[in-house]
This record gives sequence, structure tokens and C-alpha cells, in this order.
Amino acid sequence: MKRNQRTEKDETVYESTPERVTAFSDGVFAIVITIMILELKRPATPTFGALFAEWPTWISYIVSYVFIAIVWINHHYLLRHATVATWRLIWANFAHLFSVSLIPFLTDWMAETRLQSVPVVMYAFVFLLVNITYLLLIWETMGTKKSTDVPNRARRLFHVRSVLTNLIFGGAMVVALWHPYIGFAMVGACLTLYLRPGVPGMRMKM
Amino acid sequence: MKRNQRTEKDETVYESTPERVTAFSDGVFAIVITIMILELKRPATPTFGALFAEWPTWISYIVSYVFIAIVWINHHYLLRHATVATWRLIWANFAHLFSVSLIPFLTDWMAETRLQSVPVVMYAFVFLLVNITYLLLIWETMGTKKSTDVPNRARRLFHVRSVLTNLIFGGAMVVALWHPYIGFAMVGACLTLYLRPGVPGMRMKM
Amino acid sequence: MKRNQRTEKDETVYESTPERVTAFSDGVFAIVITIMILELKRPATPTFGALFAEWPTWISYIVSYVFIAIVWINHHYLLRHATVATWRLIWANFAHLFSVSLIPFLTDWMAETRLQSVPVVMYAFVFLLVNITYLLLIWETMGTKKSTDVPNRARRLFHVRSVLTNLIFGGAMVVALWHPYIGFAMVGACLTLYLRPGVPGMRMKM
Amino acid sequence: MKRNQRTEKDETVYESTPERVTAFSDGVFAIVITIMILELKRPATPTFGALFAEWPTWISYIVSYVFIAIVWINHHYLLRHATVATWRLIWANFAHLFSVSLIPFLTDWMAETRLQSVPVVMYAFVFLLVNITYLLLIWETMGTKKSTDVPNRARRLFHVRSVLTNLIFGGAMVVALWHPYIGFAMVGACLTLYLRPGVPGMRMKM
Repeated sequence: MKRNQRTEKDETVYESTPERVTAFSDGVFAIVITIMILELKRPATPTFGALFAEWPTWISYIVSYVFIAIVWINHHYLLRHATVATWRLIWANFAHLFSVSLIPFLTDWMAETRLQSVPVVMYAFVFLLVNITYLLLIWETMGTKKSTDVPNRARRLFHVRSVLTNLIFGGAMVVALWHPYIGFAMVGACLTLYLRPGVPGMRMKM
Repeated sequence: MKRNQRTEKDETVYESTPERVTAFSDGVFAIVITIMILELKRPATPTFGALFAEWPTWISYIVSYVFIAIVWINHHYLLRHATVATWRLIWANFAHLFSVSLIPFLTDWMAETRLQSVPVVMYAFVFLLVNITYLLLIWETMGTKKSTDVPNRARRLFHVRSVLTNLIFGGAMVVALWHPYIGFAMVGACLTLYLRPGVPGMRMKM
Repeated sequence: MKRNQRTEKDETVYESTPERVTAFSDGVFAIVITIMILELKRPATPTFGALFAEWPTWISYIVSYVFIAIVWINHHYLLRHATVATWRLIWANFAHLFSVSLIPFLTDWMAETRLQSVPVVMYAFVFLLVNITYLLLIWETMGTKKSTDVPNRARRLFHVRSVLTNLIFGGAMVVALWHPYIGFAMVGACLTLYLRPGVPGMRMKM
Repeated sequence: MKRNQRTEKDETVYESTPERVTAFSDGVFAIVITIMILELKRPATPTFGALFAEWPTWISYIVSYVFIAIVWINHHYLLRHATVATWRLIWANFAHLFSVSLIPFLTDWMAETRLQSVPVVMYAFVFLLVNITYLLLIWETMGTKKSTDVPNRARRLFHVRSVLTNLIFGGAMVVALWHPYIGFAMVGACLTLYLRPGVPGMRMKM
């Protein structure tokens, strides 16, 4: 991968490339987030009782919807900075999308078993995967770009957040073995750190 | 969110941003509108009788298809005015898409129970959600743009229509508790107010 | 819909509009053509016999895939000519997409009943709908554009083909009542008239 | 198809055309790769045992995911070179997408039967189809473009790789009749030849 040999001209000729990566990613995100909702089971009887009896399902779907939305926003925020679709960026992105597409599977499992221990452990594990693959994307995007809009302080804060979130997701896995509700709450709390895709050191341009 | 500090330069650098939001939204709309049709059940026997016996299903699917089309047209019309994908625009859009993706679920429930009371109440409720989240989008799009193509009179008419449609959808929920057919008709009638996405005060540019 | 009042400026400002219509349409086409294949049933036993026993299903799916491909190519060919997404264009397009999204449903019904009479009649009927809605699109696209690349002779040939294909699809419906195989062959033969999206009077620019 | 008569002007007027082909293809790829994951069955009990008991399914899904990713990367790499969406390019692309959309069907069959002979033969056959249709795309894209970035040596290497990979996929079909595990490994090994979409004679510009 002779990325360093790439000239200005090449980037101009193939500038449409990163756009196809984001278009493909958006397709995957749109399918994952929509199919999850479409597969909701219809209540057995046409009563409010039957509808509200499904509340654990409803809550876990709404929560997962919000989580996927947060992941999309961060993905969207990051890939704007990508100017070239390198080989490593594409594979990091595929790994990221793979992790994301496991979320509905685990949401479903977790809702069906009403937040039992093992499904919540695996749910936290999937978010750990989503987070790690996102870090690969940050690495590849920020590392290859020597622009002035990513100052050193921001870069450092990005790394602090990365280590922190990985520790929390990993911790949630362990905690969920005994206390699935607390483990689930930890996953949710950790995702709030991504509500704003940028870090304090960067001007919020979204 | 230092939106006011954004300079002309920033908007130029990140001008592709709102386009990715609409592309993502189109993906979700396309999935919602298509899956609904693809999940139609095949008639038990190869006869016209078996096909036409499903008429309540057919009608509710065609009606929901037209409704989602109207929602898409209005979304499409509005987001053309968005020049920057702000944090609030993105979240209002996710809430809007969430509401839209509940439509097939309720269409199905309504068709299965042949327009019983509770499913129709919830159907009207989902359209109330779609409407409220659309108002958030209008707010965010029109509010952040001080262009001359949204005159004050148009803005006022937009707000009159908003209050009116919310009242009708809310009314349909109450009416459907006793008269589901009338409640369903009210939802349909209300949506005709959105057949033309613009309001009389604005030149129709679609 | 003051389409005639639109000035050059408006078209420039909103030039991204028809692109969103085609993007949305592509989403629907991609879902329809892919889901049809994904829903194929797995053979009961891991033998070539079990796989080939499903040959009527295979043939009807391959044929429908080719048919949808032809419809997409014509849609793609036509919408390149659209410069503005008018209200009528958008609704004609929604009607067209609705017809297209019925194809998998009928392919499935036809394959399951092994080309019995009624499913083939309805299959021909759906293609009649696809054709009629395509004519609406032609009308709207060619009618609003006074460019030199659609000469009068081409326009006339377009109309001859339209009438002809409507007659054949309609004829196939009637014939299929007694001879479903012949009716199905008529649908296929008729679609070959669309293999080349243009008409002889126009230079083939695809 | 008077492709040779096309002038510079035509290409400028219709330059959006190949983009719609890639957008449509991305939609199909996104659906194929995502639905495969979404259809994973939930384990019967909420235990790690039940989850890991499904390991043959997990492995075959992860492998197919990687394979489809490789196919997408090559498709993406090749279509960047396409400047005009010719009639033949569009049909080669539809044949390619058809082959790709058969992968989940066979992954599922293979996983369910735990790598029995016939499903693996058919799996290798589908990759042979994917490869042959990709060669048609190469032919159409490279053949119609007389640019300097495809030197003769690269073109020759492309053809050597084509013949080689076709032989391996064909060989895998034969071998899988007696040794499905070896046949499956051959398919995997062969795809590594496509890990880098370019050939040594071309500068890696991805």
C-alpha cells in the first residue's frame, strides 16, 4: 500500500472514493436500524394491555435505536475528515459495520430473555467491538491527515476517551455476569460520552 | 454547539454533510415503504376469490404506502432548505425516522385486526409522532436559515398548519376509541393537508 | 404547481432535487431485487436432486430478476432526462415503484402454484401497471423538457411502443386465463421491446 | 449501441450515469451483507454454551462477510475506472450482483448442513459465477478506456489472475464432491488473491 507515494493529482482523480464508502455504510446503518423495528412482533390481541405487556421489548429497541444513532453520528462525523479511502480505512470500516450489524441480534436476544446475564454480557461485548473498530477508524482517518483542524490537544482527548470507553464496556461485561441491569446501565452511560462526537478541544462543527 | 460561530468557510468545507443525512433518510424510507409490501402474505389458493378476500389488507397497505410517500415528499421538500447538518437537526431527523418506521408495524396490526379500536388509536398516535418530529425539523431548518425564500407569512402559515394537524391527529386518537373507521378517515383527511408540502404563502418550487 | 413560472435561477438552486428522487428509487429497486433472491427457500436435503427439484422457483426468480433489471434500466435512462423533480413526476414515480414492488409477491405466488392461471393473470396485470406508470413518467419527463435531444420522430415511436406494449400485457392477461404458459411467454416477449431503453429515432446514449 | 460515436459532450451531459450504477450496486451489496447477519438465529437458552454451540454458523457467516467485503472492494476499485455506463457494463453488473446475492442463500445452506459436500460444491460454483461476471466487468471497463493508468503489463496480469482464479474455483467444485472442507479452504485461499484489488503492475491507488 504505497500510500505515501500518492500525489495530489491522484487524490483529485479518485476523490469520489471515500463518498462511496460512506454511501455503502449509510446503506448498512439504514438497514440495521430499520429492520430492527420492522421485526417487532404484533401483540396477540388488539388491546392496550397486550401492547404494553411488551414493554421490555419496546425499551430495549428504543435504547438500541438511540445507540445505533449515536454510532452513526460519530461515524458520519469522523468520515467527513477522511479524504482518501485507503485499504486500511475500508477494512476498519467493514469491521465496524460488522460489529454494528450484530446489535439487532443481541437486542432481540436480550429482550426475549428479559435482560438475563449472558445476553447482556454479549451486548456489552458487541459495543466493545463497535468501540475498538471505531478507534481503528479514528487512527486511520486522523493519522493520515495532517490538517490543522485536529490539534494535538484534541487528539490526546480522543485517546483518553478511547481508553476510558473501552474500560467501561469491558467492565460492563464483567459486571453483567452478576448484575445484568447494572451492566446494561453502564453501556448506556458510556454511550453518552459519544453524544457529542467531537471532543472539548475541537470546535463543534457538526 | 457553537452554531453561531460557524463561518462561511466551515460550511464550504463540510458542505457534504446534510447530503449524507438525506441519503441515510432515503435509505430508511425506501426500506420502510418496500418491506411493508414485500411482507404481504400469499393467498392460500390460486383464485381471484382468495386474492380479493384480503381486501382489508390491500387497502390498508395502499393507504399506508401513500401516507409514507406524503411524509417522504415533505421531508424531501424541507431538507432541501437545510444547509448545515446541525446536532439538533440530526436528532430531530432520527426521531422522525423512528416514528416513520413504526408505520408498517401498525398497518399490519390494524389490517390483521380489521380496523379494531386500539390499533387505530395507536396508528393515529404514530402519525401524531411523525407530525411532531416533523415540526421539530421545520423549526431547526427554518430557524437557522435567514434566507429570503421563507417569508414571515409562510412561516406563520406553517405554524397554523402544525397546530391544526396536531389537533386532528390527537382528535383521531380519541374518536378511534369508539369509532375506529372515523378515526382512520380523520388521519387520512389530515394527511391531505400535506399533499402540497409548501404553504400558500410560498411559491411552489417542487 | 406553478411549473411554468420557474426561472432558470430556481432550477440552479434546487438542482439536487431529481437526484434525491433517483437515489430513493434506487434504494427501492435494490431492496425489491435483492429480497426476492434472499427469500429463496433452502432445499430440504443437501443433494443436487433437492436443489434441482426447485427448478420452477429458480426459473421464475431468474426471469423476474431480469424483468426488474429491464425496468430499472428504463427508469435510469428516462430519469437522466429529468431536470426538475416536479410534483407530478414524484407521484408518477411513487406509483411506478409501488407496481415494481408487487413483482416479488407475484413471482412467489406464481412459483408456488407452478404457473397456474390466476397468478399469471395477476403477474401480467402488475406489468401492465408498471408499464402504465412508466408512461406517466415518460409523459412528465419528455413533456416538460423542450430540449433538442428528443426529436418528434422519437417521441412518436415512444408512443407507438407504449400503446403496443399495453395491448400485449393486456392480451397476456386474457390469454393466461386459459393458457398461463402462453400468457407468461407474452409478458417475457413484450419486455424484450424494452431491452434497449431508447427508440430507433434516438441516438443510443446509454 | 453506437458507443464509438459518443462525443466528449455526451459524456459531460450524462456523466452522472455510472454513479447511479454504483449507487444501485452499493444498495444491493449493503442489503446482501447485512441481511445475512440479521437472519442469524437466536440461541435457545441464554447461556454461553448455547451461543458457542452455533460456532459452525458463526464461522461460515464471518467468512462469507469477509468474502462479500472483498467482492465489494474489487467492484468499487474497478468501477472507479468506468467513465460511461454502457449497456454491456450495466448488464455485466446485474449478472455480477445476481451472483453476489446468491451467497447468503448458500452460506445458510452450508452452515445448516455443516459443510456437507453438495452445498460446498454449489458455494464454489457461486464464487465461480461471481468471478466470471467480474471478468466481464473488467473487460467492459478496461476495454473501453484507453487511459494511460492501465498499462499493458497490468492488463496481462489481470488476465493471468482471471484464468488462475477460475481454475481454482472450478477445482474447488470438483474437490468438494469428496472433500468439502478442502474445497471450502480452496475458495477462501483463492479469494486472498483479490485482497489487493489491483495487480502488481499497477500502482496501488486505493
